[in-house]
Amino acid sequence: MAGGGRKLVELFYDVVSPYSWLGFEVLCRYRSVWNIDVKLRPGFLGGIIKESGNQAPAMVPLKGAYMQLDLPRLANYYQVPLKQPSDFFDAVIKKGSLSAMRFVTALDMVQPEFVEPVSRELWKRIWSRDEDITQTESLLSAAEKAGLPSEKAEKVLEMISLPEVKKRLKDTTEEALNYGAFGMPAIVAHVKGTPHFYFGSDRFELLAHLLGEKWLGPVPSAKTKSHM
Amino acid sequence: MAGGGRKLVELFYDVVSPYSWLGFEVLCRYRSVWNIDVKLRPGFLGGIIKESGNQAPAMVPLKGAYMQLDLPRLANYYQVPLKQPSDFFDAVIKKGSLSAMRFVTALDMVQPEFVEPVSRELWKRIWSRDEDITQTESLLSAAEKAGLPSEKAEKVLEMISLPEVKKRLKDTTEEALNYGAFGMPAIVAHVKGTPHFYFGSDRFELLAHLLGEKWLGPVPSAKTKSHM
Repeated sequence: MAGGGRKLVELFYDVVSPYSWLGFEVLCRYRSVWNIDVKLRPGFLGGIIKESGNQAPAMVPLKGAYMQLDLPRLANYYQVPLKQPSDFFDAVIKKGSLSAMRFVTALDMVQPEFVEPVSRELWKRIWSRDEDITQTESLLSAAEKAGLPSEKAEKVLEMISLPEVKKRLKDTTEEALNYGAFGMPAIVAHVKGTPHFYFGSDRFELLAHLLGEKWLGPVPSAKTKSHM
Repeated sequence: MAGGGRKLVELFYDVVSPYSWLGFEVLCRYRSVWNIDVKLRPGFLGGIIKESGNQAPAMVPLKGAYMQLDLPRLANYYQVPLKQPSDFFDAVIKKGSLSAMRFVTALDMVQPEFVEPVSRELWKRIWSRDEDITQTESLLSAAEKAGLPSEKAEKVLEMISLPEVKKRLKDTTEEALNYGAFGMPAIVAHVKGTPHFYFGSDRFELLAHLLGEKWLGPVPSAKTKSHM
Protein backbone atom coordinates (compact mmCIF):
# COMPACT_ATOMS: atom_id res chain seq x y z
CA MET A 1 0.00 0.00 0.00
CA ALA A 2 1.15 3.51 -0.82
CA GLY A 3 1.38 5.54 2.36
CA GLY A 4 1.30 9.26 3.15
CA GLY A 5 -0.16 10.38 -0.15
CA ARG A 6 2.59 8.67 -2.10
CA LYS A 7 1.48 7.56 -5.53
CA LEU A 8 2.00 4.00 -6.62
CA VAL A 9 4.00 3.35 -9.77
CA GLU A 10 4.24 -0.26 -10.95
CA LEU A 11 6.99 -1.46 -13.25
CA PHE A 12 6.29 -4.63 -15.24
CA TYR A 13 9.62 -5.85 -16.52
CA ASP A 14 11.75 -8.75 -17.68
CA VAL A 15 15.53 -8.89 -17.31
CA VAL A 16 15.83 -9.99 -20.94
CA SER A 17 14.71 -6.49 -21.95
CA PRO A 18 17.37 -3.76 -22.01
CA TYR A 19 14.79 -0.97 -22.19
CA SER A 20 13.31 -2.44 -18.99
CA TRP A 21 16.67 -2.00 -17.29
CA LEU A 22 16.67 1.69 -18.16
CA GLY A 23 13.14 2.11 -16.81
CA PHE A 24 14.01 0.13 -13.68
CA GLU A 25 17.04 2.26 -12.82
CA VAL A 26 15.20 5.51 -13.51
CA LEU A 27 12.30 4.53 -11.25
CA CYS A 28 14.66 3.26 -8.53
CA ARG A 29 16.42 6.64 -8.65
CA TYR A 30 13.22 8.70 -8.65
CA ARG A 31 11.76 6.77 -5.72
CA SER A 32 13.73 9.13 -3.48
CA VAL A 33 13.10 12.22 -5.62
CA TRP A 34 9.37 11.99 -6.39
CA ASN A 35 6.59 11.26 -3.95
CA ILE A 36 6.09 7.72 -5.25
CA ASP A 37 6.21 4.12 -4.16
CA VAL A 38 7.67 1.85 -6.82
CA LYS A 39 6.31 -1.66 -7.05
CA LEU A 40 8.46 -4.06 -9.04
CA ARG A 41 6.38 -6.53 -11.04
CA PRO A 42 8.54 -9.27 -12.58
CA GLY A 43 6.80 -10.57 -15.73
CA PHE A 44 7.66 -12.60 -18.82
CA LEU A 45 8.33 -10.68 -22.04
CA GLY A 46 8.09 -13.82 -24.19
CA GLY A 47 4.47 -14.23 -23.09
CA ILE A 48 3.66 -10.62 -23.82
CA ILE A 49 5.15 -10.69 -27.30
CA LYS A 50 3.30 -13.90 -28.07
CA GLU A 51 -0.09 -12.91 -26.66
CA SER A 52 -0.06 -9.39 -28.10
CA GLY A 53 0.84 -10.56 -31.61
CA ASN A 54 3.75 -8.13 -31.60
CA GLN A 55 7.14 -8.87 -33.14
CA ALA A 56 10.25 -8.72 -30.97
CA PRO A 57 11.78 -5.40 -32.02
CA ALA A 58 15.04 -7.03 -33.08
CA MET A 59 13.17 -9.25 -35.56
CA VAL A 60 12.80 -6.39 -38.04
CA PRO A 61 16.38 -6.03 -39.33
CA LEU A 62 16.38 -2.20 -39.37
CA LYS A 63 14.87 -2.12 -35.88
CA GLY A 64 17.55 -4.49 -34.67
CA ALA A 65 20.21 -2.29 -36.26
CA TYR A 66 18.67 0.79 -34.67
CA MET A 67 18.78 -0.80 -31.22
CA GLN A 68 22.53 -1.04 -31.67
CA LEU A 69 22.65 2.74 -32.18
CA ASP A 70 20.03 3.60 -29.62
CA LEU A 71 21.09 1.44 -26.68
CA PRO A 72 24.70 2.67 -26.36
CA ARG A 73 23.49 6.27 -26.56
CA LEU A 74 20.85 5.66 -23.92
CA ALA A 75 23.27 3.64 -21.76
CA ASN A 76 25.67 6.54 -21.74
CA TYR A 77 23.03 9.18 -21.11
CA TYR A 78 21.19 7.14 -18.48
CA GLN A 79 24.43 5.94 -16.88
CA VAL A 80 23.43 2.29 -17.01
CA PRO A 81 26.25 -0.06 -18.09
CA LEU A 82 24.26 -1.67 -20.91
CA LYS A 83 26.22 -3.67 -23.44
CA GLN A 84 24.72 -5.78 -26.21
CA PRO A 85 25.34 -9.56 -25.78
CA SER A 86 27.79 -10.86 -28.39
CA ASP A 87 25.15 -13.21 -29.80
CA PHE A 88 21.90 -11.30 -29.40
CA PHE A 89 19.73 -13.88 -31.09
CA ASP A 90 21.06 -16.72 -28.97
CA ALA A 91 21.06 -14.88 -25.64
CA VAL A 92 17.83 -12.94 -25.93
CA ILE A 93 15.54 -14.71 -28.37
CA LYS A 94 16.62 -18.33 -28.15
CA LYS A 95 17.68 -18.79 -24.53
CA GLY A 96 15.29 -16.19 -23.16
CA SER A 97 14.48 -15.52 -19.55
CA LEU A 98 11.82 -17.96 -18.36
CA SER A 99 13.82 -19.57 -15.55
CA ALA A 100 15.34 -16.24 -14.54
CA MET A 101 11.94 -14.58 -14.25
CA ARG A 102 10.55 -17.57 -12.35
CA PHE A 103 13.47 -17.18 -9.97
CA VAL A 104 12.73 -13.47 -9.49
CA THR A 105 9.05 -14.29 -9.07
CA ALA A 106 9.84 -16.85 -6.37
CA LEU A 107 12.01 -14.25 -4.64
CA ASP A 108 9.11 -11.83 -4.79
CA MET A 109 7.03 -14.39 -2.86
CA VAL A 110 9.51 -15.23 -0.12
CA GLN A 111 12.32 -12.64 -0.14
CA PRO A 112 10.77 -9.57 -1.78
CA GLU A 113 13.57 -7.27 -0.61
CA PHE A 114 15.89 -9.15 -2.98
CA VAL A 115 13.82 -8.62 -6.11
CA GLU A 116 15.53 -5.32 -6.88
CA PRO A 117 19.19 -6.30 -6.33
CA VAL A 118 18.85 -9.75 -7.92
CA SER A 119 17.10 -8.29 -10.98
CA ARG A 120 19.92 -5.77 -11.31
CA GLU A 121 22.52 -8.55 -11.06
CA LEU A 122 20.71 -10.56 -13.73
CA TRP A 123 20.67 -7.53 -16.05
CA LYS A 124 24.36 -7.04 -15.40
CA ARG A 125 24.94 -10.63 -16.43
CA ILE A 126 23.03 -10.70 -19.70
CA TRP A 127 23.05 -7.01 -20.67
CA SER A 128 26.43 -5.89 -19.41
CA ARG A 129 28.87 -8.78 -19.08
CA ASP A 130 27.52 -11.07 -21.82
CA GLU A 131 26.90 -13.87 -19.34
CA ASP A 132 24.28 -16.59 -19.21
CA ILE A 133 21.08 -16.18 -17.16
CA THR A 134 19.51 -19.58 -17.83
CA GLN A 135 21.67 -21.99 -15.84
CA THR A 136 21.26 -22.79 -12.16
CA GLU A 137 24.76 -21.49 -11.38
CA SER A 138 23.96 -18.22 -13.16
CA LEU A 139 20.93 -17.62 -10.99
CA LEU A 140 22.80 -18.56 -7.81
CA SER A 141 25.68 -16.31 -8.74
CA ALA A 142 23.35 -13.34 -9.30
CA ALA A 143 21.69 -14.04 -5.95
CA GLU A 144 25.04 -14.24 -4.22
CA LYS A 145 26.23 -10.97 -5.71
CA ALA A 146 22.99 -9.41 -4.52
CA GLY A 147 23.78 -10.56 -0.99
CA LEU A 148 21.27 -13.38 -0.61
CA PRO A 149 22.69 -16.14 1.64
CA SER A 150 23.31 -19.27 -0.43
CA GLU A 151 21.06 -21.57 1.58
CA LYS A 152 18.18 -19.16 0.98
CA ALA A 153 19.06 -18.88 -2.70
CA GLU A 154 18.98 -22.68 -2.99
CA LYS A 155 15.50 -22.74 -1.48
CA VAL A 156 14.26 -20.08 -3.88
CA LEU A 157 15.77 -22.04 -6.73
CA GLU A 158 13.85 -25.15 -5.69
CA MET A 159 10.65 -23.14 -5.92
CA ILE A 160 10.92 -22.24 -9.60
CA SER A 161 9.19 -25.35 -10.85
CA LEU A 162 6.29 -25.01 -8.41
CA PRO A 163 2.88 -24.46 -10.01
CA GLU A 164 2.22 -21.43 -7.79
CA VAL A 165 5.41 -19.72 -8.95
CA LYS A 166 4.63 -20.43 -12.60
CA LYS A 167 1.09 -19.24 -12.06
CA ARG A 168 2.19 -16.04 -10.38
CA LEU A 169 4.52 -15.16 -13.25
CA LYS A 170 1.76 -15.93 -15.72
CA ASP A 171 -0.73 -13.82 -13.75
CA THR A 172 1.63 -10.85 -13.61
CA THR A 173 2.27 -11.15 -17.34
CA GLU A 174 -1.47 -11.27 -17.98
CA GLU A 175 -2.01 -8.27 -15.76
CA ALA A 176 0.47 -6.31 -17.89
CA LEU A 177 -1.32 -7.48 -21.05
CA ASN A 178 -4.62 -6.38 -19.55
CA TYR A 179 -3.22 -2.91 -18.95
CA GLY A 180 -2.37 -2.91 -22.66
CA ALA A 181 1.27 -3.98 -22.74
CA PHE A 182 2.64 -5.27 -26.06
CA GLY A 183 6.25 -5.21 -24.90
CA MET A 184 8.28 -4.23 -21.84
CA PRO A 185 8.74 -2.31 -19.70
CA ALA A 186 5.16 -1.38 -18.92
CA ILE A 187 4.73 1.35 -16.34
CA VAL A 188 1.40 1.79 -14.58
CA ALA A 189 0.94 4.88 -12.42
CA HIS A 190 -2.06 4.96 -10.12
CA VAL A 191 -3.46 8.45 -9.64
CA LYS A 192 -6.76 9.08 -7.88
CA GLY A 193 -7.83 5.49 -8.39
CA THR A 194 -7.11 5.48 -12.12
CA PRO A 195 -4.29 3.42 -13.64
CA HIS A 196 -2.27 5.21 -16.32
CA PHE A 197 -0.32 2.86 -18.56
CA TYR A 198 2.92 3.92 -20.28
CA PHE A 199 4.84 1.67 -22.59
CA GLY A 200 8.63 1.76 -22.66
CA SER A 201 11.27 3.92 -21.04
CA ASP A 202 10.67 7.08 -23.03
CA ARG A 203 7.62 8.62 -21.43
CA PHE A 204 9.15 9.79 -18.15
CA GLU A 205 8.45 13.44 -18.98
CA LEU A 206 4.77 12.56 -19.39
CA LEU A 207 4.83 10.46 -16.23
CA ALA A 208 6.33 13.37 -14.28
CA HIS A 209 3.63 15.64 -15.71
CA LEU A 210 0.91 13.19 -14.62
CA LEU A 211 2.37 12.89 -11.13
CA GLY A 212 2.79 16.64 -10.74
CA GLU A 213 6.52 16.10 -10.36
CA LYS A 214 9.53 17.46 -12.20
CA TRP A 215 11.56 15.45 -14.71
CA LEU A 216 15.22 16.09 -13.98
CA GLY A 217 16.65 13.74 -16.61
CA PRO A 218 17.56 10.08 -16.13
CA VAL A 219 20.18 10.81 -13.46
CA PRO A 220 18.46 13.15 -11.00
CA SER A 221 21.39 13.28 -8.59
CA ALA A 222 25.01 12.23 -8.56
CA LYS A 223 24.34 10.08 -5.49
CA THR A 224 22.31 7.60 -7.47
CA LYS A 225 25.39 6.46 -9.34
CA SER A 226 26.37 4.41 -6.32
CA HIS A 227 23.57 1.94 -7.18
CA MET A 228 25.72 0.62 -10.02
CA MET B 1 24.28 24.74 -46.04
CA ALA B 2 24.44 25.36 -42.33
CA GLY B 3 26.03 28.75 -41.69
CA GLY B 4 27.85 30.26 -38.73
CA GLY B 5 28.61 26.98 -37.00
CA ARG B 6 24.97 26.02 -36.95
CA LYS B 7 24.44 22.27 -36.97
CA LEU B 8 22.17 20.73 -39.55
CA VAL B 9 19.24 18.64 -38.35
CA GLU B 10 17.17 16.88 -41.00
CA LEU B 11 13.62 15.74 -40.38
CA PHE B 12 12.30 12.97 -42.65
CA TYR B 13 8.54 12.96 -42.25
CA ASP B 14 5.16 12.18 -43.72
CA VAL B 15 1.95 14.05 -42.86
CA VAL B 16 0.15 10.74 -42.40
CA SER B 17 2.28 10.18 -39.28
CA PRO B 18 1.12 11.86 -36.07
CA TYR B 19 4.45 11.26 -34.33
CA SER B 20 6.06 13.11 -37.25
CA TRP B 21 3.87 16.11 -36.49
CA LEU B 22 5.16 16.18 -32.92
CA GLY B 23 8.78 15.99 -34.10
CA PHE B 24 8.13 18.65 -36.73
CA GLU B 25 6.68 21.18 -34.26
CA VAL B 26 9.41 20.53 -31.70
CA LEU B 27 12.18 21.09 -34.27
CA CYS B 28 10.45 24.18 -35.70
CA ARG B 29 10.29 25.57 -32.14
CA TYR B 30 13.90 24.70 -31.29
CA ARG B 31 15.24 26.24 -34.52
CA SER B 32 15.19 29.57 -32.68
CA VAL B 33 16.38 28.11 -29.35
CA TRP B 34 19.24 25.83 -30.39
CA ASN B 35 22.07 26.66 -32.77
CA ILE B 36 20.62 24.49 -35.53
CA ASP B 37 19.33 24.68 -39.08
CA VAL B 38 16.35 22.42 -39.64
CA LYS B 39 15.95 20.86 -43.06
CA LEU B 40 12.51 19.45 -43.77
CA ARG B 41 12.67 16.26 -45.85
CA PRO B 42 9.21 15.19 -47.04
CA GLY B 43 9.22 11.41 -47.56
CA PHE B 44 6.72 8.57 -47.91
CA LEU B 45 5.97 6.47 -44.85
CA GLY B 46 4.22 3.77 -46.90
CA GLY B 47 7.49 3.13 -48.74
CA ILE B 48 9.47 2.96 -45.54
CA ILE B 49 7.11 0.51 -43.87
CA LYS B 50 7.13 -1.67 -46.99
CA GLU B 51 10.87 -1.63 -47.63
CA SER B 52 11.89 -2.08 -43.99
CA GLY B 53 9.57 -5.04 -43.45
CA ASN B 54 8.08 -3.27 -40.45
CA GLN B 55 4.42 -3.38 -39.50
CA ALA B 56 2.47 -0.13 -39.25
CA PRO B 57 2.21 0.34 -35.46
CA ALA B 58 -1.56 0.42 -35.55
CA MET B 59 -1.65 -3.06 -37.14
CA VAL B 60 -0.87 -4.76 -33.82
CA PRO B 61 -4.18 -4.30 -31.95
CA LEU B 62 -2.60 -3.48 -28.57
CA LYS B 63 -0.21 -1.01 -30.24
CA GLY B 64 -3.13 0.65 -31.97
CA ALA B 65 -4.98 0.86 -28.67
CA TYR B 66 -1.89 2.30 -26.99
CA MET B 67 -1.61 5.02 -29.64
CA GLN B 68 -5.06 6.14 -28.56
CA LEU B 69 -3.75 6.60 -25.02
CA ASP B 70 -0.36 7.95 -25.99
CA LEU B 71 -1.29 10.49 -28.65
CA PRO B 72 -3.78 12.57 -26.62
CA ARG B 73 -1.30 12.70 -23.72
CA LEU B 74 1.52 13.79 -26.03
CA ALA B 75 -0.76 16.24 -27.89
CA ASN B 76 -1.62 17.91 -24.61
CA TYR B 77 1.95 17.96 -23.31
CA TYR B 78 3.47 19.03 -26.64
CA GLN B 79 0.67 21.53 -27.33
CA VAL B 80 -0.03 20.17 -30.77
CA PRO B 81 -3.77 19.86 -31.59
CA LEU B 82 -3.58 16.19 -32.58
CA LYS B 83 -6.87 14.33 -32.82
CA GLN B 84 -7.30 10.78 -34.09
CA PRO B 85 -9.26 10.57 -37.39
CA SER B 86 -12.71 9.02 -36.85
CA ASP B 87 -11.84 6.13 -39.17
CA PHE B 88 -8.14 5.56 -38.62
CA PHE B 89 -7.85 2.56 -40.91
CA ASP B 90 -9.55 4.33 -43.80
CA ALA B 91 -7.79 7.68 -43.41
CA VAL B 92 -4.30 6.52 -42.57
CA ILE B 93 -3.80 3.00 -43.91
CA LYS B 94 -6.20 2.84 -46.85
CA LYS B 95 -6.18 6.36 -48.27
CA GLY B 96 -2.63 7.16 -47.20
CA SER B 97 -0.58 10.15 -48.19
CA LEU B 98 1.04 9.52 -51.56
CA SER B 99 -0.50 12.46 -53.43
CA ALA B 100 -0.11 14.74 -50.41
CA MET B 101 3.59 13.93 -50.08
CA ARG B 102 4.10 14.35 -53.83
CA PHE B 103 2.47 17.75 -53.49
CA VAL B 104 4.79 18.70 -50.63
CA THR B 105 7.74 17.35 -52.61
CA ALA B 106 6.81 19.49 -55.62
CA LEU B 107 6.54 22.50 -53.31
CA ASP B 108 10.00 21.69 -52.00
CA MET B 109 11.30 21.95 -55.59
CA VAL B 110 9.63 25.22 -56.60
CA GLN B 111 8.30 26.97 -53.46
CA PRO B 112 10.41 25.56 -50.62
CA GLU B 113 9.34 28.28 -48.19
CA PHE B 114 5.85 26.74 -48.28
CA VAL B 115 6.91 23.24 -47.29
CA GLU B 116 6.58 24.02 -43.59
CA PRO B 117 3.21 25.83 -43.55
CA VAL B 118 1.58 23.49 -46.09
CA SER B 119 2.77 20.40 -44.21
CA ARG B 120 1.30 21.88 -41.04
CA GLU B 121 -2.01 22.55 -42.79
CA LEU B 122 -2.10 18.99 -44.11
CA TRP B 123 -1.50 17.62 -40.60
CA LYS B 124 -4.27 19.87 -39.30
CA ARG B 125 -6.58 18.38 -41.92
CA ILE B 126 -5.94 14.68 -41.32
CA TRP B 127 -4.70 14.68 -37.73
CA SER B 128 -6.75 17.47 -36.20
CA ARG B 129 -9.96 18.11 -38.12
CA ASP B 130 -10.59 14.62 -39.52
CA GLU B 131 -10.48 15.91 -43.10
CA ASP B 132 -9.31 14.31 -46.32
CA ILE B 133 -5.79 14.86 -47.67
CA THR B 134 -6.06 12.83 -50.88
CA GLN B 135 -8.32 14.94 -53.11
CA THR B 136 -7.19 17.83 -55.30
CA GLU B 137 -9.40 20.27 -53.39
CA SER B 138 -7.92 19.10 -50.10
CA LEU B 139 -4.40 19.90 -51.27
CA LEU B 140 -5.44 23.27 -52.70
CA SER B 141 -7.26 24.16 -49.53
CA ALA B 142 -4.20 23.36 -47.41
CA ALA B 143 -2.04 25.45 -49.74
CA GLU B 144 -4.49 28.33 -49.58
CA LYS B 145 -4.60 28.26 -45.78
CA ALA B 146 -0.80 28.31 -45.82
CA GLY B 147 -0.90 31.49 -47.90
CA LEU B 148 0.19 30.13 -51.27
CA PRO B 149 -1.51 32.06 -54.10
CA SER B 150 -3.98 29.80 -55.91
CA GLU B 151 -2.37 30.09 -59.35
CA LYS B 152 0.90 28.91 -57.86
CA ALA B 153 -0.84 26.11 -56.00
CA GLU B 154 -2.45 24.95 -59.24
CA LYS B 155 0.95 24.83 -60.89
CA VAL B 156 2.42 22.77 -58.05
CA LEU B 157 -0.56 20.46 -58.26
CA GLU B 158 0.11 19.87 -61.96
CA MET B 159 3.62 18.79 -61.07
CA ILE B 160 2.66 15.87 -58.82
CA SER B 161 2.47 13.34 -61.64
CA LEU B 162 5.84 14.34 -63.11
CA PRO B 163 8.50 11.63 -63.04
CA GLU B 164 11.00 14.01 -61.40
CA VAL B 165 8.64 14.70 -58.51
CA LYS B 166 7.91 11.01 -58.02
CA LYS B 167 11.60 10.27 -58.22
CA ARG B 168 12.50 12.95 -55.70
CA LEU B 169 9.99 11.61 -53.18
CA LYS B 170 11.31 8.10 -53.78
CA ASP B 171 14.91 9.26 -53.39
CA THR B 172 14.18 11.05 -50.12
CA THR B 173 12.38 7.96 -48.82
CA GLU B 174 15.34 5.81 -49.80
CA GLU B 175 17.73 8.23 -48.14
CA ALA B 176 15.77 7.83 -44.90
CA LEU B 177 15.88 4.03 -45.29
CA ASN B 178 19.63 4.22 -45.87
CA TYR B 179 20.04 6.13 -42.62
CA GLY B 180 18.21 3.21 -41.01
CA ALA B 181 14.61 4.42 -40.81
CA PHE B 182 11.91 1.79 -40.31
CA GLY B 183 9.17 4.33 -39.61
CA MET B 184 8.77 8.08 -39.26
CA PRO B 185 9.82 10.61 -38.22
CA ALA B 186 13.52 10.01 -38.78
CA ILE B 187 15.80 12.71 -37.44
CA VAL B 188 19.37 12.96 -38.72
CA ALA B 189 21.69 15.38 -36.94
CA HIS B 190 25.00 16.16 -38.62
CA VAL B 191 27.80 16.78 -36.15
CA LYS B 192 31.43 17.11 -37.25
CA GLY B 193 30.69 15.41 -40.53
CA THR B 194 28.95 12.41 -38.95
CA PRO B 195 25.22 11.77 -39.32
CA HIS B 196 23.42 10.67 -36.16
CA PHE B 197 20.11 8.98 -36.80
CA TYR B 198 17.25 9.07 -34.28
CA PHE B 199 13.95 7.33 -34.83
CA GLY B 200 10.72 8.89 -33.61
CA SER B 201 9.85 11.91 -31.51
CA ASP B 202 11.08 10.63 -28.16
CA ARG B 203 14.84 11.10 -28.32
CA PHE B 204 14.99 14.90 -28.05
CA GLU B 205 16.87 14.69 -24.74
CA LEU B 206 19.55 12.59 -26.46
CA LEU B 207 19.57 14.94 -29.47
CA ALA B 208 20.08 17.94 -27.17
CA HIS B 209 22.90 16.05 -25.46
CA LEU B 210 24.55 15.32 -28.83
CA LEU B 211 24.22 18.93 -29.95
CA GLY B 212 25.54 20.30 -26.66
CA GLU B 213 22.23 22.08 -26.14
CA LYS B 214 19.65 22.03 -23.38
CA TRP B 215 16.33 20.22 -23.61
CA LEU B 216 13.66 22.53 -22.23
CA GLY B 217 10.67 20.29 -22.89
CA PRO B 218 8.52 20.25 -26.00
CA VAL B 219 7.36 23.86 -25.58
CA PRO B 220 10.55 25.82 -24.93
CA SER B 221 8.80 29.21 -24.82
CA ALA B 222 5.25 30.48 -24.69
CA LYS B 223 5.85 32.39 -27.90
CA THR B 224 5.95 29.22 -29.92
CA LYS B 225 2.28 28.62 -29.33
CA SER B 226 1.49 31.26 -31.94
CA HIS B 227 2.60 28.78 -34.63
CA MET B 228 -0.60 26.87 -34.10
